[in-house]
Amino acid sequence: MNINKDQIAEHNKRLEPVQKRRFEQLAAELSGAERIVQHLVDFQVAIPSWALGTGGTRFGRFSGGGEPRNLQEKIADIGILHALNRSSGAISLHIPWDIPEDYSAIRTLANQHGLAFDAMNSNTFQDQPGQALSYKFGSMQHVDPAVRRQAVDHNIEVIKHGIELGSKSLTVWLADGSSFPGQLNFRRAFQNTLESLQEVYAALPDDWKMFVEYKAFEPNFYSTTVGDWGQSLLYASKLGDNAYTLVDLGHHLPNANIEQIVALLLMEGKLGGFHFNDSKYGDDDLTTGSIKPYQLFLIFNELVEGMDNRSMDHTKDLGWMIDASHNLKDPLEDLLQSVEAILIAYAQALLVDRPALAEAQAENDVVRAQEVLQHAFRTDVRSLVAEARLRAGAALDPIQLFREIDVRGRLIKERGARTVATGL
Amino acid sequence: MNINKDQIAEHNKRLEPVQKRRFEQLAAELSGAERIVQHLVDFQVAIPSWALGTGGTRFGRFSGGGEPRNLQEKIADIGILHALNRSSGAISLHIPWDIPEDYSAIRTLANQHGLAFDAMNSNTFQDQPGQALSYKFGSMQHVDPAVRRQAVDHNIEVIKHGIELGSKSLTVWLADGSSFPGQLNFRRAFQNTLESLQEVYAALPDDWKMFVEYKAFEPNFYSTTVGDWGQSLLYASKLGDNAYTLVDLGHHLPNANIEQIVALLLMEGKLGGFHFNDSKYGDDDLTTGSIKPYQLFLIFNELVEGMDNRSMDHTKDLGWMIDASHNLKDPLEDLLQSVEAILIAYAQALLVDRPALAEAQAENDVVRAQEVLQHAFRTDVRSLVAEARLRAGAALDPIQLFREIDVRGRLIKERGARTVATGL
Amino acid sequence: MNINKDQIAEHNKRLEPVQKRRFEQLAAELSGAERIVQHLVDFQVAIPSWALGTGGTRFGRFSGGGEPRNLQEKIADIGILHALNRSSGAISLHIPWDIPEDYSAIRTLANQHGLAFDAMNSNTFQDQPGQALSYKFGSMQHVDPAVRRQAVDHNIEVIKHGIELGSKSLTVWLADGSSFPGQLNFRRAFQNTLESLQEVYAALPDDWKMFVEYKAFEPNFYSTTVGDWGQSLLYASKLGDNAYTLVDLGHHLPNANIEQIVALLLMEGKLGGFHFNDSKYGDDDLTTGSIKPYQLFLIFNELVEGMDNRSMDHTKDLGWMIDASHNLKDPLEDLLQSVEAILIAYAQALLVDRPALAEAQAENDVVRAQEVLQHAFRTDVRSLVAEARLRAGAALDPIQLFREIDVRGRLIKERGARTVATGL
Amino acid sequence: MNINKDQIAEHNKRLEPVQKRRFEQLAAELSGAERIVQHLVDFQVAIPSWALGTGGTRFGRFSGGGEPRNLQEKIADIGILHALNRSSGAISLHIPWDIPEDYSAIRTLANQHGLAFDAMNSNTFQDQPGQALSYKFGSMQHVDPAVRRQAVDHNIEVIKHGIELGSKSLTVWLADGSSFPGQLNFRRAFQNTLESLQEVYAALPDDWKMFVEYKAFEPNFYSTTVGDWGQSLLYASKLGDNAYTLVDLGHHLPNANIEQIVALLLMEGKLGGFHFNDSKYGDDDLTTGSIKPYQLFLIFNELVEGMDNRSMDHTKDLGWMIDASHNLKDPLEDLLQSVEAILIAYAQALLVDRPALAEAQAENDVVRAQEVLQHAFRTDVRSLVAEARLRAGAALDPIQLFREIDVRGRLIKERGARTVATGL
Repeated sequence: MNINKDQIAEHNKRLEPVQKRRFEQLAAELSGAERIVQHLVDFQVAIPSWALGTGGTRFGRFSGGGEPRNLQEKIADIGILHALNRSSGAISLHIPWDIPEDYSAIRTLANQHGLAFDAMNSNTFQDQPGQALSYKFGSMQHVDPAVRRQAVDHNIEVIKHGIELGSKSLTVWLADGSSFPGQLNFRRAFQNTLESLQEVYAALPDDWKMFVEYKAFEPNFYSTTVGDWGQSLLYASKLGDNAYTLVDLGHHLPNANIEQIVALLLMEGKLGGFHFNDSKYGDDDLTTGSIKPYQLFLIFNELVEGMDNRSMDHTKDLGWMIDASHNLKDPLEDLLQSVEAILIAYAQALLVDRPALAEAQAENDVVRAQEVLQHAFRTDVRSLVAEARLRAGAALDPIQLFREIDVRGRLIKERGARTVATGL
Repeated sequence: MNINKDQIAEHNKRLEPVQKRRFEQLAAELSGAERIVQHLVDFQVAIPSWALGTGGTRFGRFSGGGEPRNLQEKIADIGILHALNRSSGAISLHIPWDIPEDYSAIRTLANQHGLAFDAMNSNTFQDQPGQALSYKFGSMQHVDPAVRRQAVDHNIEVIKHGIELGSKSLTVWLADGSSFPGQLNFRRAFQNTLESLQEVYAALPDDWKMFVEYKAFEPNFYSTTVGDWGQSLLYASKLGDNAYTLVDLGHHLPNANIEQIVALLLMEGKLGGFHFNDSKYGDDDLTTGSIKPYQLFLIFNELVEGMDNRSMDHTKDLGWMIDASHNLKDPLEDLLQSVEAILIAYAQALLVDRPALAEAQAENDVVRAQEVLQHAFRTDVRSLVAEARLRAGAALDPIQLFREIDVRGRLIKERGARTVATGL
Repeated sequence: MNINKDQIAEHNKRLEPVQKRRFEQLAAELSGAERIVQHLVDFQVAIPSWALGTGGTRFGRFSGGGEPRNLQEKIADIGILHALNRSSGAISLHIPWDIPEDYSAIRTLANQHGLAFDAMNSNTFQDQPGQALSYKFGSMQHVDPAVRRQAVDHNIEVIKHGIELGSKSLTVWLADGSSFPGQLNFRRAFQNTLESLQEVYAALPDDWKMFVEYKAFEPNFYSTTVGDWGQSLLYASKLGDNAYTLVDLGHHLPNANIEQIVALLLMEGKLGGFHFNDSKYGDDDLTTGSIKPYQLFLIFNELVEGMDNRSMDHTKDLGWMIDASHNLKDPLEDLLQSVEAILIAYAQALLVDRPALAEAQAENDVVRAQEVLQHAFRTDVRSLVAEARLRAGAALDPIQLFREIDVRGRLIKERGARTVATGL
Repeated sequence: MNINKDQIAEHNKRLEPVQKRRFEQLAAELSGAERIVQHLVDFQVAIPSWALGTGGTRFGRFSGGGEPRNLQEKIADIGILHALNRSSGAISLHIPWDIPEDYSAIRTLANQHGLAFDAMNSNTFQDQPGQALSYKFGSMQHVDPAVRRQAVDHNIEVIKHGIELGSKSLTVWLADGSSFPGQLNFRRAFQNTLESLQEVYAALPDDWKMFVEYKAFEPNFYSTTVGDWGQSLLYASKLGDNAYTLVDLGHHLPNANIEQIVALLLMEGKLGGFHFNDSKYGDDDLTTGSIKPYQLFLIFNELVEGMDNRSMDHTKDLGWMIDASHNLKDPLEDLLQSVEAILIAYAQALLVDRPALAEAQAENDVVRAQEVLQHAFRTDVRSLVAEARLRAGAALDPIQLFREIDVRGRLIKERGARTVATGL
């Protein structure tokens, strides 16, 4: 199924008068509303191919229906999202789950939906049917060079798929680590991993970036070989200029100050991209903004300040992606909520009165610094985000329209109630 | 110094046109704005006497100036707050720091400022000069009955001071616990504490409440004898109908779901009151709402729902108090920020569309339940809070007025730059 | 395959001289070595039927070989463990994974291996094929009474299976909870759960116990409806005398003092049993004693002290079970390591000089209290544990013998390399 | 007071027969007992001058008696420790608390007690009487260059004192950070700090090391400007070859894998030294080994492996120091317990069968790797540690002798019951 322009136009027509009033009222209060709206129009968040199905835990999975059964249907799903919000204009593929049979056809299909190919993702955390060697004890860290070789080759193959599709980056997330003291020699695991990454890096086209993702724990429960931003930065620095750290919000120890990490990585010119989600306990992979929206705002506050300080392009110079697991919600609704939360946080960060904040900081006026930030956060920016959607040709209320035209029901009719998408 | 009505009137006159416009715009969007404003007018948060000076850590204290030197000046400080926001109409005293010399004079003074006497607080976590026995190894848990006796007697004395002033509740926070495995017999520590509390409870007037506060750790670093809500509830249940659990937001282990605790304590009829503050790591005692404003909203969401379910009076049936430590900010400005954050969260909770939420819950419509809550949270309710202030005769922008008339400068002139208030 | 007595005898014959020397040297240092050895001989830890296969995470599972394919083979596996260590004399079944076709045959088989039937476990955290209603949004907490009915009926069915086999307890672990703010009305979820539990409790034979297990998070990531010991105790108290709290070591928030929880539950007469495992981050389900062996000792220290204080029988009055997930290790070797760690901690706890500890506590001699505990912990008690095995007819070094006679290789030969046991 | 050799000799004479038996029995079981004993004899842990008095929390301090009143008495206290255990042969001074009036006399005094001068410590986390500018908002990070200048000058002064005394390193611990979002520009705070450190580094003698200590939080509760090992390593790498990271065990977020950090810092050649203590919740500064002795062992396991891999000298190439706070215990007894725990962990690490561990790792034999480590940890090595003391001329049981000759009583008699040492 597709969402057509008439459906959106009709939906917007109904909601536009209220939106117009709210936007005008807010724009009159703010300076720079137009600038913010334009930033919001430009901002695009990639959707990972594996987030379109129902997620699960080790205890089980409660599938919904109408999940995409192949890459074409995944693209179609993201096409629906992008039609609804015009902010989801990219797909991030996972190999081997998404190996295209016909690159050209896939490129054309994505193009029809207005979608670009974001970072390619490799998988060395599972054993695939017919795989020669097991990743049970790691991949790039493995004590056996043959396993490392297999992992390197797989990543190089992923790059090749990406080249065909027009992707420009490779995200390497390694589950490598250990679950018990003594299992690993930490130093050797690091060095094996570094050497493996170097081989992959050497195969990277010049205009590509490599993102080294870190994670504190899970699926290993004692150590992770790319365990925190310090380790990721060590790898990225040793690899070279095109290697960067990737931050996933859920991959930290309790109480970590993620916004400070972001600021320092930007300072070092080594922040590569973001995986958005939210969490209360561990890597819970919940809807972005559903648990700690103020933290999300504080992170965007650092991103905007740091990118502007380095004259970076907000839309192109960092990789923005959602990475969540939809165990209970309809995956597409969940993604719509996540994108909305991201745009709200971004809009709030754009609202921050930077000269006033700088002045408060210069005077150690902590009270005022907080007032400046909270003024932006407490402002109801939803009419700015909606205005951006309106101008971009998206729906004023994507979830409402999603339900009105019964997208899920139609997907189930098309695909069946018992489909299960690849993913976690 | 005092804030007089003319100062407030003049301040409001300047800001009122903008406020009027904002409030009217918002009221037109909402149903029930007037009801919410009235709730906000009625809501009062007690200020603890020990939060008026600069706080410190074990590493030091960086005092500001003009801190109150005695109980009269503490009352004056809260009088300033209450004049500015009309939401700080109560003082919570700490004995022995605030023993009045002349009850009648103190009552009259508080009355002049429109302040009631909230919960009395005892102190068995420090040794006072001349104290016969030390609390180094606990107070009500102590292996020596004479120490327990001393702690009980002190609490009974605190009740007596409270009776003279018109207070109606006693908050017992015990630092009792242990810093090393083996130090305590947990069972005996519990039983000693229970017996001591029972003696204090027996001395409680019939119309008083006893609040049993819990805390996970600090100043003891291995165990705390009233360490979590489960333990506090055990004590409160064994003590009797007038004993309740008191929740301090900073007194939990990492990632605790405080809003669920609140809901269950309300369900059991055993929630007594609240100590507001905010924290990122431990009992950081930061400005309320400065770190996790969404959590604060979720807590108020449970409070409003739970109190309404039990037909409780929002303003009278629970004890509301700020308990924070102002290490870096001007204490009075910090308290103004905290009260503002509390009122915002309360207003947002009042805004929640309860029938819609109940319906979403009944249908397991998780997406919509989130939309309902986040709609309330994302609404900019500041004009409601300001409207409540305007109607109550408070300042539209308390911090701005505080600075305009240079309250701190004048307090320093009156009291000196080197005063140090009692407190933490 | 079976381990026969000759294999054990031959193994022991080789190791016995060294063991004899070590035991005699240690026994000469201690008072009461014989008493401790007898306690160790008597102590039995139940093995859950689902811990015999390779465990996994949501990211995947790396199966080993020779996993048991049915209940008979699970019993055989535990029979091997029990033959090797004589401390694993019970099996804990999980329904529907282990529904017996022929009770009598299963009872006979278990009896041949010297195994009793420990607590029965129900499963309302997964949907079974053909199940009428889904547990996606909870079971006993569910807003729909029909789902609650189904969950209650399932538990009653589990009791019936248990009666046929001679079990005397039911463990109820509920995954019920929520992953997003607003999803649940906490109070109603509690009350629904309580009512459901009451119906199950009503169906419990008089000589049975019900264990109410709590867990902080996972698979739900915002709230859990039996989330901590306080909640479990509330349920157990409202249910009645035969309802108890069950403590699983991995089910707590970071830094929780589990030993204090154990002591207080014993004080209240409401500790029912234990699930042993170890963890660094969350419910990591690692080998018991592999991460925090001192914590394990401190827990046993409270157990021994508290049980003795209530004149409880160490072996019968609490339920002892391992509950772990063997993602990387051979499950049987992992279980042997876990049982060994439990016996070591138990032996150390039995070694604690209780009068000396009590005296140190009575004098607030924190240094000495620590010395007393650490003396026990630092003592190398392995020769006591080995002696107990020797006397019970088990192997002096179970893992060594397991490998010498290539148990796993023979299981693979019998059962195949690609079997996958039911479990997590 | 001093401990004289006769007192030790007499004490040892009594305990020696038992010790001799235990040591011989253990030595017969082990290979390399003599090598381990020699390592233990050589190993020295520095004692910080501020750990000799009673510590406190922000809630208060419960002083003991007989605390050292000046640098001479602090040296005397450490002299007592060193006489008792011959493993505490260095003192670490804190400026301005320990500014010597007469360098030569202090050097002579230390020499008499066999004490070297370990790392010098600066203090920019407190304001000293008469200090021109305040560190309330940081020192080296401060927005005001004059404050940074003051902090740099202070550190350079500290180096000068150290040169006079024969110290060879400077430890910089900065409390710099922020307690509220918005307070700091993280990037500028980092850069200011780096520039300040560079100025201090430039003043460092060629044969000195600079240790950059990190800490996750406290006394700032939102961000710390040297907040984790990644940040410390960034500073140290930018500073130069003589700058190193210093690890304090209590300065991490919950659940951090400290042993992996240690291994990686050693790999990078950037581990400088250690502050030993223990903790359950935050920077609790408890007796080393009192909460997580297995973690301490695992850290030493990495230290020994990593140092040997780099052919480092265990005793000279890293800085070993205790950094704890003695709130409840006699500070000297607490330090004796800490040193004992360190030596035990070190001995256990020396016991690890490295070839067997390497082999298990090479085969991904996780079970055996754990067995190898736990064999070392479960071995009762106390007789090795005691043997080292015996050979070095120390007391076989330092705490027992400390009590037998009533050291504390005599110190109180000499110094009074109400002395308060400088410190935290």
